[in-house]
Amino acid sequence: MPVPILKQGTYLIASIQAAMSDTDAQRLQDDLMEQVGRFRSTGIIVDVTAMDVMDSFAARSLRTISHMTSLRGAATVIVGIQPEVAFAMVQLGITFEDITTALDLEEGLAHLNRRGTGVGRTDGR
Amino acid sequence: MPVPILKQGTYLIASIQAAMSDTDAQRLQDDLMEQVGRFRSTGIIVDVTAMDVMDSFAARSLRTISHMTSLRGAATVIVGIQPEVAFAMVQLGITFEDITTALDLEEGLAHLNRRGTGVGRTDGR
Repeated sequence: MPVPILKQGTYLIASIQAAMSDTDAQRLQDDLMEQVGRFRSTGIIVDVTAMDVMDSFAARSLRTISHMTSLRGAATVIVGIQPEVAFAMVQLGITFEDITTALDLEEGLAHLNRRGTGVGRTDGR
Repeated sequence: MPVPILKQGTYLIASIQAAMSDTDAQRLQDDLMEQVGRFRSTGIIVDVTAMDVMDSFAARSLRTISHMTSLRGAATVIVGIQPEVAFAMVQLGITFEDITTALDLEEGLAHLNRRGTGVGRTDGR
């Protein structure tokens, strides 16, 4: 099932559903890259609240999305990582490295608003 | 073919054509450094819209330009990285680290205008 992407002002919000197949992840990458160009988006929020598992493929996809979109001038924030998921990620050694994360959608939007717009940095800051 | 450099106010705009040889990259570095001093430029935009490939040498040249010119007080923004190029860069692990990127020329100019002028930071911010 493709991940729905909402456009809100200059931001894009993608809400990942409970399970994200590898195909969905790939498609999410392509869709976000396409929409960043089309809507001149400066920020992307990927909401993973509904995900009950974050495997290494999903984590890598999110890292790729963050790096690719920052090269196009959009900052990505991952929001809603559940406590169990965070625990499992740390135990399994899955890291988001330099990707920005926030507690929930609200904090993610606040971060993007504070950050200003239209300029990417590949180190994710 | 040398990369053309336009002067627009206190900014310099370099538009890289489809293919940039290693010699062109070297010359672009020298030309930009010379012109930053001559025109007292405070911002540089390197437009890579026409590039369909970003190899590690080209990326390193752009990083070098950004760091060198920031030591002379000019901020560099790379604009127009195409989606395919961004994807390939991420896959190949080629990063711009702390270089500022923006969607296109317009966003790049907006960033330089917001940033204010005449003060460089070697981390590119």
